[in-house]
Amino acid sequence: MTRLIQNSTFRLFKNKSNRLLFTCYPTCTHAKLSNLTRSSIEYSNIEGEKAQLKMEKSTSKTIVLTGYGGYDKLRIEEWPIMKPGKDEVLVNMRTNSINFAELMARQGLYDGSPKLPGVLGMEGAGIVTQLGEDVTNLKVGDRVICIKMFGLWKEFATVPAEQCFPMPDAMTFEEGVALPVNYVTAYHMLFDIGNLRKGKKVVIHMAAGGVGIAATQLCKTVPNVTVFGTASAVKHKIIREVGVTHPIDYRTQDWQTEVTKVAPDGVDIILDPLLGSDATKAYATLKPLGKVIHFGAANMVSGPGTNYFQIAKTWWQTYRPAILSMMPANKVVAGYHMGHLPQEPIREAMVDLIALYNEGKIKPRIDSVWSYEQIADAMAQMHDRKNIGKVILTPYDENNITPKT
Amino acid sequence: MTRLIQNSTFRLFKNKSNRLLFTCYPTCTHAKLSNLTRSSIEYSNIEGEKAQLKMEKSTSKTIVLTGYGGYDKLRIEEWPIMKPGKDEVLVNMRTNSINFAELMARQGLYDGSPKLPGVLGMEGAGIVTQLGEDVTNLKVGDRVICIKMFGLWKEFATVPAEQCFPMPDAMTFEEGVALPVNYVTAYHMLFDIGNLRKGKKVVIHMAAGGVGIAATQLCKTVPNVTVFGTASAVKHKIIREVGVTHPIDYRTQDWQTEVTKVAPDGVDIILDPLLGSDATKAYATLKPLGKVIHFGAANMVSGPGTNYFQIAKTWWQTYRPAILSMMPANKVVAGYHMGHLPQEPIREAMVDLIALYNEGKIKPRIDSVWSYEQIADAMAQMHDRKNIGKVILTPYDENNITPKT
Repeated sequence: MTRLIQNSTFRLFKNKSNRLLFTCYPTCTHAKLSNLTRSSIEYSNIEGEKAQLKMEKSTSKTIVLTGYGGYDKLRIEEWPIMKPGKDEVLVNMRTNSINFAELMARQGLYDGSPKLPGVLGMEGAGIVTQLGEDVTNLKVGDRVICIKMFGLWKEFATVPAEQCFPMPDAMTFEEGVALPVNYVTAYHMLFDIGNLRKGKKVVIHMAAGGVGIAATQLCKTVPNVTVFGTASAVKHKIIREVGVTHPIDYRTQDWQTEVTKVAPDGVDIILDPLLGSDATKAYATLKPLGKVIHFGAANMVSGPGTNYFQIAKTWWQTYRPAILSMMPANKVVAGYHMGHLPQEPIREAMVDLIALYNEGKIKPRIDSVWSYEQIADAMAQMHDRKNIGKVILTPYDENNITPKT
Repeated sequence: MTRLIQNSTFRLFKNKSNRLLFTCYPTCTHAKLSNLTRSSIEYSNIEGEKAQLKMEKSTSKTIVLTGYGGYDKLRIEEWPIMKPGKDEVLVNMRTNSINFAELMARQGLYDGSPKLPGVLGMEGAGIVTQLGEDVTNLKVGDRVICIKMFGLWKEFATVPAEQCFPMPDAMTFEEGVALPVNYVTAYHMLFDIGNLRKGKKVVIHMAAGGVGIAATQLCKTVPNVTVFGTASAVKHKIIREVGVTHPIDYRTQDWQTEVTKVAPDGVDIILDPLLGSDATKAYATLKPLGKVIHFGAANMVSGPGTNYFQIAKTWWQTYRPAILSMMPANKVVAGYHMGHLPQEPIREAMVDLIALYNEGKIKPRIDSVWSYEQIADAMAQMHDRKNIGKVILTPYDENNITPKT
């Protein structure tokens, strides 16, 4: 008979005669090893009973940020697995993601970048493996989406239970991890700040990126919305399929000129992840009661390293609205940063978004999946704006994301 | 038999023997006068037929702004009645109103103040007396609410037909004239920019004023909205009746301190007609995703004349948001000025507002009615913040607003 023992603490060691033994709490103290794999041990215990022990790793593969700067500042290390706090759970991450925030955080440009050495990663999807003592709304084995202000690029990460959202059965770990940041960001910007209603005109920059695709899909849930989307020409076919009405090639065309040709009176909502002169143009392209929402500073990031000239230039080119001139212009200017939001509006958005997923109205688009070891290439994919949809990471290899049960 | 002749052009004159005669086009050239009142002439025409002619005044009592400054810059004059343009109608105004905009415009502080000598007045309610040749949606005799970027403080004013809204039968001219500026302003700020939804917390300054009462009533159309309203203590009973949850006496209490006691995490919407240090406090009192809407600069107006020190001080004390700091704070800053809006959003709001009036959900509150000749006292009533609700003007006397038919 083979017994399956989970969630035990054990330690391998060698005895004086160089024989491999292990202690295992609470099941046995010493046992005879019969088979050892990465994830399980078969052994005979003191009573001669055959048993299988699912190994619980004591360390977690982790992408560590060792300094602010280029891709070389990221290293793969084994870090100890932390015990979840009272209100936390331990999650075995099957997928993580890269957001623009992590590109900026790596350069130390992101408000809220972790202290060094530290761990980035705002999203994860995986399996709950351990519960903090006060957690009642989740159980071991639940498939969950996790949101945390960094610290999730880990094979095993602790996450506050209220920041974990059970995944629908049909949702893959790749889809799950693509939902929080991009879709919650797009949701808050369009529906809370932008107050998107039928017939409105929306400009979406980087329309082939994670937020861009999420925003386009959310625009399509409202009747008769016109979407202007910027992307390089090679991506136009795809963003058109997603729902962009007027694709604009920002490399060869001035987006403001193109938008104004179609909408001479201006547009209702502009989502601006760029800042700099594009932000200033955005403000000018709003119609009365139009809303511009700034949610990033992509123009500050010009290469893999920190470029202070580019940062200063972007800052300089960004307008600074004067209240007295905003009044006659009827303009609405917003800053958005999901990482600084309290949990309540995030939860509200996630509940709505999971419902929209179940109704088939939104579906995260996956660009590519990379192992932790490929982090530099994965980041370059995003930085060079090659991606169409979400760039996914996994601590495993890409064929082993969903564990065999 | 007495015939009623309307809309004729006539002229009174005396003949050589000093007898009063008149010519009247197209009905008659000379006629024998039998009775003359301010508004009608009874006469016998050439055929001996008795007739009554409703006089059409050739001049219009008008409040004229002769210079920028104090109350003495406003004079009552008789100005010629203009012929309506193709898309305009001529309206016999039965009521007009005073808005804060007119107080500022009188001092030359309002963007869009008319050239001198000019006519203020953004709202009117009255009766259509003449149609431009292309007007099809209105007819002579219609009771209408008029909105125009100044020029309505006239007994007879021309108004673009699309800026006239037929009044429900139950609505008085006093109520009608109180609807556009205050209610459209409150409507756009709360429902378009503010995206007011159930359970939100709102700060309304000058809660006993026109916009304040309109905004409070509109807040009550949404479930479970908390309203903080500032007003002097003597007005608290009334604003509480209108719907303010927490009245704050701005003269003896710091509104920010009082709001924060009840809502330590901040509020969702702040309507700011003040600017200066109150605007800066408002920005600081928003919760994440909170929206502050600036729609006036009452703090710039300290007395009946133009006070450049007060203007400079208010300007100086008003914050200037930096986009990069708005992002982590998740703040939304808006400027609002109804006078600079295109017609479309105003029409949309008016349609909704008239529906809300018909449902009994909103009811303009009238503070007081003043004749044109009392304009200085009427303005002082508002400037000194004595009013609770709308301050109304009429070219007639207050007992003759609704004409006897």
